[in-house]
Amino acid sequence: MTSPPSPRSDPLQTRSLQKGQQTRAAILDAALGLASHTGLEGLSIGALADMMHMSKSGVFAHFGSREELQISVIRQYHARFEEEVFAPSMNDPRGLPRLRALFERWIKRVSMEIDSGCIYISGAVEFDDRPGPVRDALAEMVVTWHRALERAIAIAVDEGHLREDTEPEQMLFEIHGLILALHHDARFLRIPGAPERARAGFERIVGFYATAPAPPTTTRKTSKR
Amino acid sequence: MTSPPSPRSDPLQTRSLQKGQQTRAAILDAALGLASHTGLEGLSIGALADMMHMSKSGVFAHFGSREELQISVIRQYHARFEEEVFAPSMNDPRGLPRLRALFERWIKRVSMEIDSGCIYISGAVEFDDRPGPVRDALAEMVVTWHRALERAIAIAVDEGHLREDTEPEQMLFEIHGLILALHHDARFLRIPGAPERARAGFERIVGFYATAPAPPTTTRKTSKR
Repeated sequence: MTSPPSPRSDPLQTRSLQKGQQTRAAILDAALGLASHTGLEGLSIGALADMMHMSKSGVFAHFGSREELQISVIRQYHARFEEEVFAPSMNDPRGLPRLRALFERWIKRVSMEIDSGCIYISGAVEFDDRPGPVRDALAEMVVTWHRALERAIAIAVDEGHLREDTEPEQMLFEIHGLILALHHDARFLRIPGAPERARAGFERIVGFYATAPAPPTTTRKTSKR
Repeated sequence: MTSPPSPRSDPLQTRSLQKGQQTRAAILDAALGLASHTGLEGLSIGALADMMHMSKSGVFAHFGSREELQISVIRQYHARFEEEVFAPSMNDPRGLPRLRALFERWIKRVSMEIDSGCIYISGAVEFDDRPGPVRDALAEMVVTWHRALERAIAIAVDEGHLREDTEPEQMLFEIHGLILALHHDARFLRIPGAPERARAGFERIVGFYATAPAPPTTTRKTSKR
């Protein structure tokens, strides 16, 4: 029964608070690594405690339940995704250049994750028939990302880079499909060249929705079986 | 220790063999239903024994191991998929009409499975980091289906319905992406209208690869947010 920290907490209390935050961040890091490999459902307080050389109750002190841990991992994943994919693309010029940058960073991110797996994509399959707060947190993050892309598409329309009648949800659906196919072919079938296929597909989609003809793509191969 | 059935086995033995095959088929049916909901990894001999009002050893007598059961379920799923999607489309005219028929039946199949889940798509995520005979069996079935579609695309090129430089693997990659996006949006995000988005995407892809302009599609909406 400790009293809540006073606004002007003493140095000792501050240090202990910082220490607690550091431990929490370290556990979260380990949990993110574990979930990337075994899936969110593979997360267990016990396995984490082993990894961190902590007691189970020590881990429980930071995350009150397995569900809370899973939701924290989803939020952490989302924060990194935003940092790596979304934020840097905001420096690219509005319109098609920014949309391209977002897609290219998305491809790079999924390609990097081939050996671990994307929590959004794997989580969608893990939780598609498990209603509850974990599924809701995951869906919220995925929808937030999709809305950001739809906004980028809408801006490209406003900028005159894409046709007036471009429907952002439809274009996003098609682009998202390329990312899912990339994840499937590269990770499950272990087929090389999936990122190039996704890029070629993207150029074709952009070519269709663009007002001007798309520049020739160098990634599309003409070789036939 | 029974002797192997003789070529001219007596009626009693034949009846017992038939009975065994019927039981096996019934277990497989139940296993397929279970796997569709809980995933291939959710399959357990114990749960199946409960469902079938059998003993665990009774189930084991038909499937020597959990792995063998999983592989049998994958083969059974594949046989049904072929029966419902592939076989009837072979009655459609070669070329684009057959490719369209295959895609439309694929969409219908995935749409029907929204409440249960597609074993190919869920299995790909479940087994993408679990090497072994189950993953191999699953990948073999998926690749068999993809090859059939690539052949249908190649025939559409030969028939002059698609451009000479159409690369079947690339076109398939894009079409497969639409199916994955449909599964994701309909099953995980529970967004209505995903089948229409997939159809509109397909028409756009066909429009690009077709030699003649694609007929106007009625499914693509022009409404904007």
